Amino acid sequence: MTRQELVSIIRKKKSFLCVGLDSEINKIPPHLLREEDPVFEFNKQIIDATIDYAVAYKPNLAFYESSGLKGWISLEKTISYLHMKKDRVFLIADAKRGDIGNTSQQYAKAFYEILDVDAITVAPYMGSDSVQPFLTYPEKWVILLALTSNKGASDFQYIKSGDSFLFEQVLQTSSRWGTKDNMMYVVGATQAQQLETIRKIVPDHFLLVPGVGAQGGSLQEVARYGMNKEVGLLVNASRSIIFASSKEDFAEKAREEASRMQKEMEILMH
Amino acid sequence: MTRQELVSIIRKKKSFLCVGLDSEINKIPPHLLREEDPVFEFNKQIIDATIDYAVAYKPNLAFYESSGLKGWISLEKTISYLHMKKDRVFLIADAKRGDIGNTSQQYAKAFYEILDVDAITVAPYMGSDSVQPFLTYPEKWVILLALTSNKGASDFQYIKSGDSFLFEQVLQTSSRWGTKDNMMYVVGATQAQQLETIRKIVPDHFLLVPGVGAQGGSLQEVARYGMNKEVGLLVNASRSIIFASSKEDFAEKAREEASRMQKEMEILMH
Repeated sequence: MTRQELVSIIRKKKSFLCVGLDSEINKIPPHLLREEDPVFEFNKQIIDATIDYAVAYKPNLAFYESSGLKGWISLEKTISYLHMKKDRVFLIADAKRGDIGNTSQQYAKAFYEILDVDAITVAPYMGSDSVQPFLTYPEKWVILLALTSNKGASDFQYIKSGDSFLFEQVLQTSSRWGTKDNMMYVVGATQAQQLETIRKIVPDHFLLVPGVGAQGGSLQEVARYGMNKEVGLLVNASRSIIFASSKEDFAEKAREEASRMQKEMEILMH
Repeated sequence: MTRQELVSIIRKKKSFLCVGLDSEINKIPPHLLREEDPVFEFNKQIIDATIDYAVAYKPNLAFYESSGLKGWISLEKTISYLHMKKDRVFLIADAKRGDIGNTSQQYAKAFYEILDVDAITVAPYMGSDSVQPFLTYPEKWVILLALTSNKGASDFQYIKSGDSFLFEQVLQTSSRWGTKDNMMYVVGATQAQQLETIRKIVPDHFLLVPGVGAQGGSLQEVARYGMNKEVGLLVNASRSIIFASSKEDFAEKAREEASRMQKEMEILMH
């Protein structure tokens, strides 16, 4: 998907919501366990319930890999289901991959060709040649980890070198590898006050912002410090939407929560 | 596998060779493409041919994921095959995973419970809580990226903060998360001169050393600067062994190359 297409979906839906499909088998409503593929059935109903309000979906690979082969099948079916939807959305494989060049090439093939998602999250530690292979596919995106939403973010991302933190150097250096048309950055909502600094380094790039909802970040703060002229944000919520209820009404409750967030986003977009 | 068991396998085989199963479907000998599962058939013959000389095997996940579901099946069969071998070896999933706590927990389940490997490679960027979930399994190992063998290693790993490089801070900080009994580090052979510094920070930890062979690192240098009293090294070779020949004699040639490396290692262990 091109940047223009993504922006136009955001404008049309008045939403920059990404729904995280962290579909842990132990947390999905028990009545679904009777289904042949409970995780896929869960995702299908979540997607149907939320797609009016969401512009992106982000399956988190770990929650599929942890069921082995069965999980991989659920994932493939989920992606196919999203591709079949008339309502086009931006698909992110949250996989945090990254390795030496010839290996990253294989990951790019796995995610852009086999799964055919629009974007993959990538870890920056191994540097340029670990990211480059992902940037050679037209209309596909790298979403590089910059500043994450977890406690451990402070261990290395805030290491100071000269005048800048490591995460700032990651932004500065990596912004030369790609463009605003094929790179985004992960910036946790729990670090919203840093978005102002980050916007000075990458004013035009899209930011994928996890940590709103279950992790406690504020949507207003993210919008205040992170939004640019083309919105430039995808805000992800996973557990607060998909596990809004653990009962038979889970899809309805997910829809309500997604709708609530979309309405808040619509106001923030004005 | 415990540290004691690993050391005793190394002493018994007089080898610290790890064979990297980067089994790219486009590079395996063409006659195998007639098999139902060419990648598994390739791995099986490579394993049989090299197991006398190798103490560890390291499938690189990217090369399986890039074939989708079929790749995942080849991987599972390869791991099962290694488990069935009488000759016990150390199994590493080279997956470079790492995410927020609840997600890393799922990756730990995927690799330690479902695939049942001994170790997984993990990227350090997200800090302590991204690594901790992998350290709660007895006799399982985290192999954390410290200094990698690729060109891009210089982008961030050599960022200087105070008196030390980022990779040195990764070693210092993370060595407090686990122990020498459940953590190892990736240190590229192309950076062998740095092994002396690294050994000052982590004298007792095992190091997984890629980059000998196709990437040009020297086994002698690695041993000179990196070996400790319990050997403390696993040196990985992938392409130089598994693709030693692209013809029907590939297993024989792989065996010759593995044997050649083992003999060199035996001398270096004296």
